[in-house]
Amino acid sequence: MAITLTTDFGYTDPFVGILRGVILGIHPNAQIIDFTHGIPAQDTRAAALVLNSSFRYFPQGTIHVVVVDPGVGTERRPILIQSQGHYFIGPDNGVLTLSFDEKKPTRIVHLSNEAYHLHPKSRTFHGRDIFAPVAAHLSHGVSVDAFGAELEDCVRISWPRINRAGQSIRGEILYIDGFGNLFTNIRERDLRDVATETIRVSLGSLDIRGLSPNYAAGKKGNYVALINSWGLVEIALYRNSAASHSHAKIGDQVQIECGFRSRVQ
Amino acid sequence: MAITLTTDFGYTDPFVGILRGVILGIHPNAQIIDFTHGIPAQDTRAAALVLNSSFRYFPQGTIHVVVVDPGVGTERRPILIQSQGHYFIGPDNGVLTLSFDEKKPTRIVHLSNEAYHLHPKSRTFHGRDIFAPVAAHLSHGVSVDAFGAELEDCVRISWPRINRAGQSIRGEILYIDGFGNLFTNIRERDLRDVATETIRVSLGSLDIRGLSPNYAAGKKGNYVALINSWGLVEIALYRNSAASHSHAKIGDQVQIECGFRSRVQ
Amino acid sequence: MAITLTTDFGYTDPFVGILRGVILGIHPNAQIIDFTHGIPAQDTRAAALVLNSSFRYFPQGTIHVVVVDPGVGTERRPILIQSQGHYFIGPDNGVLTLSFDEKKPTRIVHLSNEAYHLHPKSRTFHGRDIFAPVAAHLSHGVSVDAFGAELEDCVRISWPRINRAGQSIRGEILYIDGFGNLFTNIRERDLRDVATETIRVSLGSLDIRGLSPNYAAGKKGNYVALINSWGLVEIALYRNSAASHSHAKIGDQVQIECGFRSRVQ
Repeated sequence: MAITLTTDFGYTDPFVGILRGVILGIHPNAQIIDFTHGIPAQDTRAAALVLNSSFRYFPQGTIHVVVVDPGVGTERRPILIQSQGHYFIGPDNGVLTLSFDEKKPTRIVHLSNEAYHLHPKSRTFHGRDIFAPVAAHLSHGVSVDAFGAELEDCVRISWPRINRAGQSIRGEILYIDGFGNLFTNIRERDLRDVATETIRVSLGSLDIRGLSPNYAAGKKGNYVALINSWGLVEIALYRNSAASHSHAKIGDQVQIECGFRSRVQ
Repeated sequence: MAITLTTDFGYTDPFVGILRGVILGIHPNAQIIDFTHGIPAQDTRAAALVLNSSFRYFPQGTIHVVVVDPGVGTERRPILIQSQGHYFIGPDNGVLTLSFDEKKPTRIVHLSNEAYHLHPKSRTFHGRDIFAPVAAHLSHGVSVDAFGAELEDCVRISWPRINRAGQSIRGEILYIDGFGNLFTNIRERDLRDVATETIRVSLGSLDIRGLSPNYAAGKKGNYVALINSWGLVEIALYRNSAASHSHAKIGDQVQIECGFRSRVQ
Repeated sequence: MAITLTTDFGYTDPFVGILRGVILGIHPNAQIIDFTHGIPAQDTRAAALVLNSSFRYFPQGTIHVVVVDPGVGTERRPILIQSQGHYFIGPDNGVLTLSFDEKKPTRIVHLSNEAYHLHPKSRTFHGRDIFAPVAAHLSHGVSVDAFGAELEDCVRISWPRINRAGQSIRGEILYIDGFGNLFTNIRERDLRDVATETIRVSLGSLDIRGLSPNYAAGKKGNYVALINSWGLVEIALYRNSAASHSHAKIGDQVQIECGFRSRVQ
């Protein structure tokens, strides 16, 4: 059972190395995989999106540890969620919850059993003292029940809703990747039964007609809209950063008109 | 058989984590190694240089996956190249080809067999949908022939040529590393039979006499030229960035005079 | 026996990938773990701190390779230190030595046996040509004695001392993490027998009263001082960067008054 790590620790400090040490100290043959440690500091929503886009490619039984934890050392609970055959471990602040969205998780456990924590326990680094050791023990065969009492529910982050009015869908910029591509919260399935050439996407002063099959369709320097690898409507610039050029940022409103027929052409 | 990964995905997004998930989903015991994910966006030549400098240290049979792929989703072919006992997988845009340079590869295969791709297949992320799954299946024992038809040739990137005129060699800045060291395209073997103390390297207004044995030879703050770990002539500043101080950039012309005898001394 | 890697190579170049290749070329089943490759260029003290904060979480027998090596290619010796059941491999410039501090290491070995080096050997990359191959051979079962002659002592970096005068402790900023938290060189044990609410921490114009239990105690935007996960007094800003806001930098003086009783309240 592999253990994946997602954090906002960055790549300069040894904090990720410490997590790996703790895991291997408990389970020397654990297989440890990095999603990313480049989550913006304390950005629980970005962490939730990253986890949601990635976990399903891993084998059943994989353990996903997320440490984006501004409330460390307060009353916020450390939890384990079992859902869709995967295990999710982290703080009870919503980071783990986009991954089951509307589905009900199989089980939520409060990681209250101190026998599986590191001691002495710091108040500033539960990744090291609680989440990593629990993940290591779980991967080593300890049963989920052993880590603490079952919980009824947990804090949730939800997928930001789109608004529909007639032929129009209003959404927002959800995520901006390292290439500067703008991911919206509008999903391919939200466009079901719409002919892609009749779509018109607007963002600020940008007005994009039709969905493109790939980035290179924007070879002449024009913005393209396409369905990206997360199944979302994305706005991009070929070999360039749509984010830098458009100055768009997370939360900016995006509008899609469907059934639009171009008069130009 | 280890699988190495080289991409321009950076360290902020989960795209590398997704590649790892896909590989482990197919071959749970695959050994996955990162070269770097810091290739500048869409810089196929940098990726080719990185791969060329690294692959030969890995055991025979290693599978090298390169995803620097601005043409994803277009007609550019996904390919596998077998050469020098290693496997190279990526887009047919030259990124894989510096590693065999003048040598003829053993085999080039068009990765056309959809049975080894992920489905549904996106048009924007063939790293996830084609290259990673093919690498995983190959490491798991599937034979090279199974992935598609053999090709006659592929798109190539070549080592930029140097020009010789008498005792003079003209080359260029090929690569700048994170320390700000300036790698030229002039190889140690291009200087065969030349006494290193008779060499004079010029770059813009810089004029460096002799090759130094190490960085610390530039302790007094002067630029040094040396043969670096890739076997290339390099211009460096001890504990400092030659790139920032000289404002040199990739492609800038470098001149070497051989057989030069210093009158000053 | 896992091998950990700590370097100042960054994440853009393939140098870390090359280390991995060399290790796997010698010992194909080696388990390779990254502490960090984000050590500031040539910053031997930062590397020593990172290693010291991390190594003890790894199982006994772990091999820690540190490549922060401005003197590469000079007379500085490549060494192996055995201490506290761990192995430390790197240049003899102090990077390995904070980890045993006042303790005497079990053994120090000069890595002079060329049979365990890579050939041809560069003068600019001993990480690749000496440290990685020695680590791989050690993890593969070669005995420590084989690598070279035992040494009496090595170059040392020490923990910067604090100064005590009556109820006052004077220390300094030792390390700044990626969140902008300011780590001081004052250890929890330096405050033994002091009531934490009677502590007053000053740094430049900052004046912080009491130690907080966690970051969230600074919710109203005030700086907090706390004992961090390395057991050090740390100055932090909740969900913000204390370093950016205070302009504090490494080496800045920090003063702690103990037994202080607030008149305000």
